[in-house]
Amino acid sequence: MRIKCKNRKHLIDAAMGRVESDLCIANAKIVNVFNGQIYDGSVYITDGFINHVAFENDTLEAKETYDAKGKYLIPGIIDSHVHIESSMMTPYNFAKAVIPWGTTTVITDPHEIGNVLGIDGVTYMHNSSEGLPMRQFLDIPSSVPAVKGMENANATFYKEEIAKLAKLDRTIGLAEVMDYLAVIDGEEWMMDVIETALDNDLYLQGHAPFLSGKALSAYLIGGANTDHESRDSNEAYEKFRYGMRIDARDSSMCKNIPAILKGIEGTRYYDNLSFCTDDREADDILKNGHMNDVLNVAIQCGMDPIDVIKCATFNAAREANIDKLGAIAPGYVADILLMPTLDKIDPTEVFFEGKLVAKDHELQVEIKGGDFKEEQTNSVTLKDDLSTDDFTIKAPIENGTVKVNVMAFDTKDGSATHLETVELEVKNYQLCLQEGMMYVAVCNRYGLNNIALHVVKDFGTVHGALGSTVSHDSHNLTIVYDTPENALKCALNIKEARGGMSAVIDGETVYTLSLPLAGLMSLKEAKDLSKESELMKEANRKLGLDYMENPILRIVTLALPVIPDVKMSDMGLIEVNKKEFIPLFAE
Amino acid sequence: MRIKCKNRKHLIDAAMGRVESDLCIANAKIVNVFNGQIYDGSVYITDGFINHVAFENDTLEAKETYDAKGKYLIPGIIDSHVHIESSMMTPYNFAKAVIPWGTTTVITDPHEIGNVLGIDGVTYMHNSSEGLPMRQFLDIPSSVPAVKGMENANATFYKEEIAKLAKLDRTIGLAEVMDYLAVIDGEEWMMDVIETALDNDLYLQGHAPFLSGKALSAYLIGGANTDHESRDSNEAYEKFRYGMRIDARDSSMCKNIPAILKGIEGTRYYDNLSFCTDDREADDILKNGHMNDVLNVAIQCGMDPIDVIKCATFNAAREANIDKLGAIAPGYVADILLMPTLDKIDPTEVFFEGKLVAKDHELQVEIKGGDFKEEQTNSVTLKDDLSTDDFTIKAPIENGTVKVNVMAFDTKDGSATHLETVELEVKNYQLCLQEGMMYVAVCNRYGLNNIALHVVKDFGTVHGALGSTVSHDSHNLTIVYDTPENALKCALNIKEARGGMSAVIDGETVYTLSLPLAGLMSLKEAKDLSKESELMKEANRKLGLDYMENPILRIVTLALPVIPDVKMSDMGLIEVNKKEFIPLFAE
Repeated sequence: MRIKCKNRKHLIDAAMGRVESDLCIANAKIVNVFNGQIYDGSVYITDGFINHVAFENDTLEAKETYDAKGKYLIPGIIDSHVHIESSMMTPYNFAKAVIPWGTTTVITDPHEIGNVLGIDGVTYMHNSSEGLPMRQFLDIPSSVPAVKGMENANATFYKEEIAKLAKLDRTIGLAEVMDYLAVIDGEEWMMDVIETALDNDLYLQGHAPFLSGKALSAYLIGGANTDHESRDSNEAYEKFRYGMRIDARDSSMCKNIPAILKGIEGTRYYDNLSFCTDDREADDILKNGHMNDVLNVAIQCGMDPIDVIKCATFNAAREANIDKLGAIAPGYVADILLMPTLDKIDPTEVFFEGKLVAKDHELQVEIKGGDFKEEQTNSVTLKDDLSTDDFTIKAPIENGTVKVNVMAFDTKDGSATHLETVELEVKNYQLCLQEGMMYVAVCNRYGLNNIALHVVKDFGTVHGALGSTVSHDSHNLTIVYDTPENALKCALNIKEARGGMSAVIDGETVYTLSLPLAGLMSLKEAKDLSKESELMKEANRKLGLDYMENPILRIVTLALPVIPDVKMSDMGLIEVNKKEFIPLFAE
Repeated sequence: MRIKCKNRKHLIDAAMGRVESDLCIANAKIVNVFNGQIYDGSVYITDGFINHVAFENDTLEAKETYDAKGKYLIPGIIDSHVHIESSMMTPYNFAKAVIPWGTTTVITDPHEIGNVLGIDGVTYMHNSSEGLPMRQFLDIPSSVPAVKGMENANATFYKEEIAKLAKLDRTIGLAEVMDYLAVIDGEEWMMDVIETALDNDLYLQGHAPFLSGKALSAYLIGGANTDHESRDSNEAYEKFRYGMRIDARDSSMCKNIPAILKGIEGTRYYDNLSFCTDDREADDILKNGHMNDVLNVAIQCGMDPIDVIKCATFNAAREANIDKLGAIAPGYVADILLMPTLDKIDPTEVFFEGKLVAKDHELQVEIKGGDFKEEQTNSVTLKDDLSTDDFTIKAPIENGTVKVNVMAFDTKDGSATHLETVELEVKNYQLCLQEGMMYVAVCNRYGLNNIALHVVKDFGTVHGALGSTVSHDSHNLTIVYDTPENALKCALNIKEARGGMSAVIDGETVYTLSLPLAGLMSLKEAKDLSKESELMKEANRKLGLDYMENPILRIVTLALPVIPDVKMSDMGLIEVNKKEFIPLFAE
């Protein structure tokens, strides 16, 4: 992918001084990502590109000069992997939130909306990010749904969909190839997806949690060779040694950077290291920052700031095959940050394509939405005559005990689970749940009517019903509940809101967070949305998730059937590594 | 560019151990270019690709095992810029010569034969290198002829030719964009060539001797951002700082590595450093080696061998956008060298795509030529009735003195020149040359009949005639001579040989080196060709070039109108930086 310049000759003329440059950012300490040095100098910009970097006296005429007043000047920061949907904001509201922090380019994977609205959803993310004062590249979702045949999303992407979406202007890659079993088993449809992506000159983004040894070799042969899933030092070490590009992640939930940096300690080269947010919520961005915050974590771990900057700019662009992005040099795109120190990345000025777009954390440009039909579409189609029966597990015996296959969380804040077969008492066809257990329903919300019911243990809520249409990756309505009545009320709240989250206790709604765009996103800005999500968090805490900093994230991975050992979908309970369904009642 | 695997699923199966690997290279010290460490382990290969790297006990079954006996194992070496024609060998004879030294991939610029045979010539280089036990990629010549409008080659490449040649299977780039004036002047045809190359997903190879400051900025905006022309430390430093990729050169003539490494001393990153040979002759290759010799120069300069290896493998592949080449990791092409030490790169085993192709400097596979019409084509079409008159400068006055514009070499072994206007005596319409002067003729050899005659000073020969159809880049017949009689005999010798070089003294031929393929190359192997070229060198020394280690190289750049200040073509004497002709007789 190259970012096309409007008129190459004009840029050359500007470099040669035959025409005036548009802008000179003068009196800066320029961080050079090619040799790691810092130089006093000026950067000349024309048509959004750097047409000259003047060290010493090699100056040009410019229409306008911006005095950097001796601040450090670095390239705009690149997020190598992000799901904008996780911010619960639209692409343009996301832009408003992250630009002031210095994120000028993001490589997005719109697979959440892809599951809900299919090709239209991905196209919406593309079109609604057109013309923004930041750059939002698209990787095409490779795994819609996450695991084919085990869940019903509203779309299924095979090679035909990939080929179609590859034609969008800002498509650069195939997004995280999550179905690693399909890769290492060499499943035909996955081989087709890989070849289609390669034939369309896309880079392949990976997602390979816990893979090592031969399975990691097999996955890499599959062609996806980036990974943002390294959680411990050994995993990072092995992937790095195998040539996998590490996108070190600091999401709202997963803080992997310290372990990764420890794992690759002693490396002579950082060529294959970049950084990403993956999933960051609106209030996290508002309070703590975006990519700058991620970089500061790495700096706090003792990594040299210049190395950190290089990884988050030049390396990130190279990883995704984006030419002329991520450095301060002639011919490069003029995405530039100014900051008073390198010890903490906190830009005071953000230039996008040579235009000052944020200053002192305030946007300097107007960002507007547009008229997009997807923003008006109701994506939540539940069963018409929903009733408490739909949320009632009926035991196969009237009274006695029955063995139940229970999805048990390993910890009350992690997403890993295991299967427990538990003998439960039955009274009048009703299961008697034990301490720590709740019911769980995954209701198809795309008109299929099917609802899977199971029992979950150590989820964390202790009463009431907690429901969400944000439920990776097929985003069916997932409800963890104590009584069918609470579950029903929760479902109806969310239906009325056209998607979102709701908490109900003893028949009373505590709070409903409305996410009408694909049941995933609000149309509100970060400032307003974060207030609402704070209320939703409070409600979740009341249900029992009071030990979590961000309880909203608890339910959203319950139905993600790529995280071992067992997960739910609208089709039932799944043994992840075997891709097999597990019946509710054990033999 | 990616090197396609035959059957991805089969490779994945091999990684997972579902099928046997083809080969295991066991008991090796594996050099890892991702983190710079060395590991004991085994490399598994299937279908020419690495399907697994086993450290510790993570082994697989293989049909065959090769015991590396504790030797170092590194990726095959990549030459980032080479003109095979300069070896005076065909692509397949070149392969025979370089493979035993560990060069498994070369990125070639066939612009010599492009000038002589046009599209057919480039296509010949492509087709005659098909199926070799090494990889010869092509960059399409960007500057045929070197300077448009100032010389007559047998072909002119504009965007149409570039677009056509971009379709060849192994085309990966646009070759060294030499006409830097056309770039920094923004000439329309050059802008078209650049955009055509980019539209065809080619990387742009540069060539920017002496450019700095704004002109270097302008050149880089042109899109070509590699350079193998850095000669001094300052030049290398500035280019590196501007993000230009340095292909540090050690050709038979130009030994730039010490200066370059000194220039970039203290860099924190070597991401943008690679190595190249540019031009190496058959006997140089035979005696001293190929890329391994280049690498050893860098090691002797004090660069760490692992850094050197990374630059010549992973970096070189990345520079040219070649995926899955240049590292020992799953999914990478199995080009592998074994060697007993890293202190001196001298491979004892060379594996190409998993096959042992050389051992102890002996080829282990047969390499054959083919039936190519270009090898039978006579490319030398001189004036039919060539006579001594054609080589006689007639003064505009019968007797007296006349001012002559003389092409004066700055030194007797460098290629830089300057203009001297000298007052010469004339007797009976004949110029009386002064000490150190010779006549020079550049005769079009493509049927145009025009012959340019001038006077050269400090060329180095002191008597006789020295002629060559190897005469960069248009490769017209260039003769430096004392008398028209000797020049004529020299020309006729070369005509009879269908191209090559000839030395004549006092009407007697000293030696003629036959180069019948495009007047540039022999059809002989290195062993035989180097004997002949040794005889040619001896002959050149007899003419006065006895102070040069390789006198053959003296005449070949006399007519290269991209080297300042003045150069010759078949159209006359040229002021290089102005692109203007200079008349023989001064006002």
